[in-house]
Amino acid sequence: MSSSVLVVGAGLIGTSIGLALRGDRDVLLQDPSQEHLSTAQARGAGRPWTGEQVGLVIVAAPPARVASLVGEHQRSQDRAFFTHVASIQSRVQHDIEAAGCDQTSLCGGHPLAGRETAGPAAAAADLFEGRPWVLCPTASTREEALAAVQALVTSCGANGVVMTAEDHDRAVALVSHLPQVAASAVAARLVGSPDAVAVSGPGLQDTTRIAASDPALWTDILVGNARFVGPLVRDLAADLARLSGALAQVTDQATGEMAAGRAGIADLLRRGQSGRGLVPVKRGDHDSDFTRVAVSVPDAPGQLAGVFVCAADAGVNIEDVRVEHLPGRPTGVLELLVHLTEREALQQALTAAGFAVIRTA
Amino acid sequence: MSSSVLVVGAGLIGTSIGLALRGDRDVLLQDPSQEHLSTAQARGAGRPWTGEQVGLVIVAAPPARVASLVGEHQRSQDRAFFTHVASIQSRVQHDIEAAGCDQTSLCGGHPLAGRETAGPAAAAADLFEGRPWVLCPTASTREEALAAVQALVTSCGANGVVMTAEDHDRAVALVSHLPQVAASAVAARLVGSPDAVAVSGPGLQDTTRIAASDPALWTDILVGNARFVGPLVRDLAADLARLSGALAQVTDQATGEMAAGRAGIADLLRRGQSGRGLVPVKRGDHDSDFTRVAVSVPDAPGQLAGVFVCAADAGVNIEDVRVEHLPGRPTGVLELLVHLTEREALQQALTAAGFAVIRTA
Repeated sequence: MSSSVLVVGAGLIGTSIGLALRGDRDVLLQDPSQEHLSTAQARGAGRPWTGEQVGLVIVAAPPARVASLVGEHQRSQDRAFFTHVASIQSRVQHDIEAAGCDQTSLCGGHPLAGRETAGPAAAAADLFEGRPWVLCPTASTREEALAAVQALVTSCGANGVVMTAEDHDRAVALVSHLPQVAASAVAARLVGSPDAVAVSGPGLQDTTRIAASDPALWTDILVGNARFVGPLVRDLAADLARLSGALAQVTDQATGEMAAGRAGIADLLRRGQSGRGLVPVKRGDHDSDFTRVAVSVPDAPGQLAGVFVCAADAGVNIEDVRVEHLPGRPTGVLELLVHLTEREALQQALTAAGFAVIRTA
Repeated sequence: MSSSVLVVGAGLIGTSIGLALRGDRDVLLQDPSQEHLSTAQARGAGRPWTGEQVGLVIVAAPPARVASLVGEHQRSQDRAFFTHVASIQSRVQHDIEAAGCDQTSLCGGHPLAGRETAGPAAAAADLFEGRPWVLCPTASTREEALAAVQALVTSCGANGVVMTAEDHDRAVALVSHLPQVAASAVAARLVGSPDAVAVSGPGLQDTTRIAASDPALWTDILVGNARFVGPLVRDLAADLARLSGALAQVTDQATGEMAAGRAGIADLLRRGQSGRGLVPVKRGDHDSDFTRVAVSVPDAPGQLAGVFVCAADAGVNIEDVRVEHLPGRPTGVLELLVHLTEREALQQALTAAGFAVIRTA
């Protein structure tokens, strides 16, 4: 088997794969856009494909184009394996079957490293570093095809996770598409209420951040995965309708339904807290292993640096950082996530350096 | 008018007010808990009240206790003004009326600086720095009473925002209580799906962060503001039910409703993007004035510091920071928010210092 690869589509993902494989594999590039091809080549992602036989073809094109590109290259490649990087797997797999492609040499995949920014200029050699990369072999996929794609994933520094196309689409519907929908729906309610937004805090900031994403791109994603996103959105709507019923019960104290309403509200909040506990904070650790130390920082160049230098000198590893902005003031509060065992050391070091530790939680 | 104040309730807010006023006013403290009182006094928030007449009484107790405490102190204070810090205003105002308190000397308020952590030990002198502090005078409130509370707000470093109790409760329902509900509802859907969470990214992290909040505390808040939160949750549920209908339309391509479904999906996403545009990033500036520079950072003490020192040396002010964790890997991606005009300088400085700038957006 040749170790050369052909990347079909020199966009963000294709070019990043080329950059990640540099020095490791002979990477050939193809793209209908001469500009994309030149940019990718100039960045060192590979050289233009001129009909060479390769060991692996990676179709990094929009989902709707994948099946026809796989078919096209299967006709000219004699011994290659095939993969793609579609963000939705079931529909692409269906298209590939319908197009009559050879499925024994193919294993679909999806690196979970997407960004809002597109194109080869935004590509990066370490885009996949430490990220999950889902692999979706079918019953027809030969073991060697799966192994070839797994080797690619490893070379890119990602972690291969094998699941069926259906399981993949169901998972991303839950952990990526549903949060997008919720963020957009909450943010949509802010339209026309700038006065209320003026008294908002960091909770609103975080909860609506991804609502800034490109609506056109996300319309495509939601349409493409409507089969799995639809029922989740319906269930979320039902949970919220139930909650609004519970809130109506506690509003009308005369009906004696106060206790039932209260229980309904508490139930959703408790389930939410449990669900949040599943979300990894760092290296699979969960919230309870860590603590937050908040420090007041004047908003001027060098002040943030001082806090981090201070932590570094004390040998404390900052696991996460959040800046809490103070509207209208040139100061902010920096929240540092550290392991419980390091809280004491960090607090002492910061205080000794003259920083105001506001609280620990 | 005496410049002395009596803080009734030495919890997080009351003690923080005492600390903020230190050196500026004579602060007297009262609390049924001797432990809270001692802690607050030891931290320098004030001295125990022994029946002195004061100029301003600040009731910093749970909403359900406010009216009776106001009444109690109005009986012994001859010339004082009164305020409270309840997170929900209408109900407290109603209680105060029902209890027959004097309303001419009273103006309710709410500093938007709440934290999960409670108690005097978590208090901080700069808790209110730059934060909005809503003031809710009624038709009965005398001008001098509003002025006395406004002077308190200014002394605490906060920004006074005058609105009616109803407007306040409606605003926090939208910008604080609704995001909490949405975060909890999304996180609740994760229960039982740890495999799916394993392929999640930063979007899920941000969107569900506040779902970790205390369910008991939030049940009280939602029950207390059910009148305004209820309709918002009902409307959010309706938006999501409509979206799930649109997703059903695009799933069944045979019905010819594809275009209508697509339009419905795009509409919610676009409205969400508009709403998000209202959320201030910093000093009233909005997303479009800023850009994000992402840099790869090994997860070891001192590495984060290096990035900030580098930015400081280049005179670049980091407006916001986000750490994107790479599950299972000892590296992370640091996203730095800087003003558009400083992007170039930051990129050059980081690259010169040997840091890998992954992308700018």
